Amino acid sequence: MRAYLAGPDVFLPNAAAHAKAKVVICARYGIEGCPPLIEDVVAPEWQTIFEACVAMMETADLIIANLTPFRGASADSGTLIEVGWFLGRGRRVFGYSNSATPFAERSQALLKLMADPMPGLAVEGFGLADNLMIPGAVIAGGGHPIVLPQDGRDRAFDALDVFERCVALAAAALETR
Amino acid sequence: MRAYLAGPDVFLPNAAAHAKAKVVICARYGIEGCPPLIEDVVAPEWQTIFEACVAMMETADLIIANLTPFRGASADSGTLIEVGWFLGRGRRVFGYSNSATPFAERSQALLKLMADPMPGLAVEGFGLADNLMIPGAVIAGGGHPIVLPQDGRDRAFDALDVFERCVALAAAALETR
Repeated sequence: MRAYLAGPDVFLPNAAAHAKAKVVICARYGIEGCPPLIEDVVAPEWQTIFEACVAMMETADLIIANLTPFRGASADSGTLIEVGWFLGRGRRVFGYSNSATPFAERSQALLKLMADPMPGLAVEGFGLADNLMIPGAVIAGGGHPIVLPQDGRDRAFDALDVFERCVALAAAALETR
Repeated sequence: MRAYLAGPDVFLPNAAAHAKAKVVICARYGIEGCPPLIEDVVAPEWQTIFEACVAMMETADLIIANLTPFRGASADSGTLIEVGWFLGRGRRVFGYSNSATPFAERSQALLKLMADPMPGLAVEGFGLADNLMIPGAVIAGGGHPIVLPQDGRDRAFDALDVFERCVALAAAALETR
C-alpha cells in the first residue's frame, strides 16, 4: 500500500529529513510512504511541482494528510486540494492534526488578530477540528475521524506522535477492509 | 451544464439572496448554478450538510469556486476540498478571487499579525494568487488561470463582477470543448 504523505511538512527547514522520518514510521506499519518532495529538480517551476505531486498522487492508494492548522484558521491549503482529490478518486483518506484546539476556538483567536472582510460572516464550528468539509472528507474517505492529540494538548508543529497513531489506524483499517 | 457554486459565500449574512444572484448570472450564460445552501433543514447536523454538498457535487458537471482568501493566507478551506474533489473526478474546474493581492504579499501581511508556529517555514509564492496547488488545480481542471480583478484592485468580499467574468469564461470554454 502506497500512502501520499500530504502536509505543510514540505515547508519545514529540515523537510527532507522530516520526510524520511515519516517514511520510516510508515514502513514500520507496512505502508510505503510517498512524501511530495521534489528534490531532483533545482529551483523547479511551480507547474513542475504541481505535476509531480499529481503524478505521485496517481500512484498512491491512500492519503495520510497532516491537517495541522497553517497560516489561518484551517489546515494547509495545498493539502486540502489533495484530500479532496483522493476523496473524488474514491481512494482512502486519513488525516491527523497536531492541534487539540477546536476550529471554532482557533477561528475566534484569529478574528482577534485579523477582522473578517465584512461583518456578519458566520461559520459554525460544530465542535469539530476544522471546517466541516474536512472531517467530512476524512470520515467519508477513510471511515475514521481526524486523529488528534489524545491528551488534549497541542503538539509542536513538526511532532510525529499523532502522525504515528494515524499511520497505525490507517494500517489497521486497510487490513480489515 | 450544472455548475457547483463553491465558496465562502455560504457564510454571508444574506447567503440565500447572494446565492440567487449567482444563479441568475449563471443562467444568463446558459449554466445552471447549484449553490450549496442547505435551506430545507432547520439546524442540520454537520454530517447532513457534508452529505448534501457531496450529493450536489455528484450532480454537477463543473465547479465555479470562489477562491477569495478567507480567514488566512489562502482560499476557504471547505471550498478547497471541493475543488480537489472535482479535479479528482476529472470534472472541469473554474475559479476566481476578489483579491488582486498576490499570495506571497498576503502571507507576509498575515505573518505580521500571527507568527508561524516555528521559525524557518518557507512557502514560495511564485507570483501566484494562492498556494501553487490551487492555481494548479484550476488550470489542470479547466484550462484557464484563476480569474482575478482585471484592474489590480481588490473587490469587496461579496462583489460579483469577477464571478461573472469567470462564469463567462467557463461558458465559453465548455462550448469550445
